[in-house]
Amino acid sequence: MRNPQLNQDGELQHLLSTEGLPARIMRDILDKAATFLDGSDQPEIRKVPLLHGKSVFNIFFENSTRTRTTFEIAAKRLSADVVNLNIGSSSTSKGETLLDTVDNLCAMHADMFVVRHSQSGAAHLIARHVAPEIHVINAGDGRHAHPTQALLDMFTIRHYKKEFHNLRVAIVGDVLHSRVARSQIHALTTLGVPEVRVIAPKTLLPTMVENLGVHVYHDMAKGLRDVDVILMLRLQNERMQGALLPSAQEYFKHYGLTEEKLSYAKPDAIVMHPGPMNRGVEIDSAVADGPNSVILSQVTFGIAVRMAVMSTLAGGR
Amino acid sequence: MRNPQLNQDGELQHLLSTEGLPARIMRDILDKAATFLDGSDQPEIRKVPLLHGKSVFNIFFENSTRTRTTFEIAAKRLSADVVNLNIGSSSTSKGETLLDTVDNLCAMHADMFVVRHSQSGAAHLIARHVAPEIHVINAGDGRHAHPTQALLDMFTIRHYKKEFHNLRVAIVGDVLHSRVARSQIHALTTLGVPEVRVIAPKTLLPTMVENLGVHVYHDMAKGLRDVDVILMLRLQNERMQGALLPSAQEYFKHYGLTEEKLSYAKPDAIVMHPGPMNRGVEIDSAVADGPNSVILSQVTFGIAVRMAVMSTLAGGR
Amino acid sequence: MRNPQLNQDGELQHLLSTEGLPARIMRDILDKAATFLDGSDQPEIRKVPLLHGKSVFNIFFENSTRTRTTFEIAAKRLSADVVNLNIGSSSTSKGETLLDTVDNLCAMHADMFVVRHSQSGAAHLIARHVAPEIHVINAGDGRHAHPTQALLDMFTIRHYKKEFHNLRVAIVGDVLHSRVARSQIHALTTLGVPEVRVIAPKTLLPTMVENLGVHVYHDMAKGLRDVDVILMLRLQNERMQGALLPSAQEYFKHYGLTEEKLSYAKPDAIVMHPGPMNRGVEIDSAVADGPNSVILSQVTFGIAVRMAVMSTLAGGR
Repeated sequence: MRNPQLNQDGELQHLLSTEGLPARIMRDILDKAATFLDGSDQPEIRKVPLLHGKSVFNIFFENSTRTRTTFEIAAKRLSADVVNLNIGSSSTSKGETLLDTVDNLCAMHADMFVVRHSQSGAAHLIARHVAPEIHVINAGDGRHAHPTQALLDMFTIRHYKKEFHNLRVAIVGDVLHSRVARSQIHALTTLGVPEVRVIAPKTLLPTMVENLGVHVYHDMAKGLRDVDVILMLRLQNERMQGALLPSAQEYFKHYGLTEEKLSYAKPDAIVMHPGPMNRGVEIDSAVADGPNSVILSQVTFGIAVRMAVMSTLAGGR
Repeated sequence: MRNPQLNQDGELQHLLSTEGLPARIMRDILDKAATFLDGSDQPEIRKVPLLHGKSVFNIFFENSTRTRTTFEIAAKRLSADVVNLNIGSSSTSKGETLLDTVDNLCAMHADMFVVRHSQSGAAHLIARHVAPEIHVINAGDGRHAHPTQALLDMFTIRHYKKEFHNLRVAIVGDVLHSRVARSQIHALTTLGVPEVRVIAPKTLLPTMVENLGVHVYHDMAKGLRDVDVILMLRLQNERMQGALLPSAQEYFKHYGLTEEKLSYAKPDAIVMHPGPMNRGVEIDSAVADGPNSVILSQVTFGIAVRMAVMSTLAGGR
Repeated sequence: MRNPQLNQDGELQHLLSTEGLPARIMRDILDKAATFLDGSDQPEIRKVPLLHGKSVFNIFFENSTRTRTTFEIAAKRLSADVVNLNIGSSSTSKGETLLDTVDNLCAMHADMFVVRHSQSGAAHLIARHVAPEIHVINAGDGRHAHPTQALLDMFTIRHYKKEFHNLRVAIVGDVLHSRVARSQIHALTTLGVPEVRVIAPKTLLPTMVENLGVHVYHDMAKGLRDVDVILMLRLQNERMQGALLPSAQEYFKHYGLTEEKLSYAKPDAIVMHPGPMNRGVEIDSAVADGPNSVILSQVTFGIAVRMAVMSTLAGGR
């Protein structure tokens, strides 16, 4: 079966997952993002006409103001016409099927869909369905994938660490429910990171997670030892009570990233988080705001990476 | 009384209804839409500066993501500044009157209002109230009218059938509650269609519907016989239980468009639907996705028709 | 302590309050607004490129379609990219702090924040927090300030009365809960209005309101005598029942502006209201729509004033 993300010339057709995404395409996106980053703090050159006249539809079946905003800003800086659709309150509630909604938007001559959906596989389903001139970007589907987040994380790592082949990277937290973690693991291994660790209580790890090529730790002291990069995961509020976790306080005690636990890592280790942060739950404020944190750089880089993905899909630059 | 849709030179001032809209103006809009359609699949020429600097306000007192999106896309491809106002959650809930809200938006130097309202006559009321340099487009008012839907339907019919004067057209379904049906009937008769039929159970037909110049059928086999065009109507969910209809299943059995019922029509009959579709209620998937269906073309044509209406009102091209 | 609204060269850095805003800056904004007003009824010259490439974020923690729309229109006429964030339904509900939300938006290279928040001081807090290249406009914070409303009111007064130094101005209504009234009082006194009156029942006046430099009246006949300008305040629905007011009818009888009460003012007095109006509560329709009313001019001038504020902050023109 052909890779659903590539066209027959091997070029990026959709961005659905970092799983199966060739390293050369990831590197091209990171390189292109660097060129957008150069101008991003200067309004005079920040805006480029690469997507002028094109229509980007942000189709959010699951609410996320932050992610929607990053795509909206990226598309507008590329001069696209952007339409935001909050589908929760829309046609699907009128009994229309997902694919009928998509067909309708295609018929409006959309050029690109940015899709967020609570069900794993939704973006793939849409990508298989649309005409070849339409490009789909997965902005998060269920527990499955969030590839632009992973790519901006890779950009951040490369920015601070230059190379991937000599790194030890730890992913900490609720891997079980995290599309971010899955996408990070695939991206890190594809780009040649030799040692990827996951650190979590057993209840927050998928079964057979080792098959993804990661080393499993249940203890922060051991798991963080000598790592170069710490990727914190957000703990969803809804997990904090119930069967999986005793309490937020208990979680913080064992897995919250404090300065003390950070000291196990290399002194120049960088700390990342996809946001929004739960301060005092998965991360202590002293670390979030401390010298090792690159959390806000991730946000800045995220705009450049999303511009790079969109312009790659549109065939520009 | 002067036609409220025309200025004193007989030009289109507002688009409120297809009732009383002169045939020459309908034809001009369809002709202009054809020029927009030509470029619509090419982003390079899709965007035109006809409304550059103008402000289009989408004022939706009744939620409709789909219709709002089509107008938003049309206005942006004309280079207008577009502002979406979901008034349900806004000033009217603060006790302001409809006309005060409108006065305020006028004072912001709006150039065009696209109005959707649950009450019949709302767009007319607004049109009578605004200054002469402001244009109002009715995007659906109560059970009364939805003229851009009817015009895109006329465009679709002309696209596939070339002429109106030799057609037999059937409108099927809940005519009683349908602003779409009313607008279609007025447009079809104005453009010279010699035979317009409505097919529905008695409970879903307005009294005296024959006075609109249509032939009434209660049976699909007879009503669809030898028609060229089938205009399906959406069955509102809220009608499906209660006094008017026994059940969705029962409705589908008698009035749902299946391949079997479609076979009564001419072999090259086109099937249309304003969307969103209830598959298995008013239309069978085999027909919706079949060779006679032009439902998605309607959507594409709808953008071009709305661009044509807006640029006609703005005096362009 | 340095004025938090000015940079070290004494130029406007943020617009947070009319309190402490120098008269020369207010006058500069009014002068600049006049230049924008000149072109505002002509779409050809209405749109200017002063903020091209810049990103304006409308961050509304409290819903206000009307105010958000005026800023959106102003920013779009300056050619900015505008992103609307309705934060009620967003990250803060995911446990993120206000300042983390702000940090994230800053990291997206925002150039300007327009902030509406239900808590007094929110805009100040954000302004103190952001990097020096980012500008904050307070679009209303709690009961504290609404400076663009006050500036557009000053523009309106100057437009009709030419000078400030010879005026008698009355502010009528719920001063206690009104950020508009506070901002008006500071602006009027700064611009040299010699006599500012407030007229309200005791229960709707702040204690020690005289310290703001105003004269207090509880009676419309006395308070309105010979005034040049009447600034009506909106009566919030939630005040109309309960301890502060007997009823809307009773309020209207004593403080509602009728033609009879208006007759106490000078014959050429202007009547203003920030909207949305409660007709029959704080103002009678005969006055709202009468010859002394300049309420809709306020709205028109509001767009020009907001364009002036934004372009002043951005250093343009």
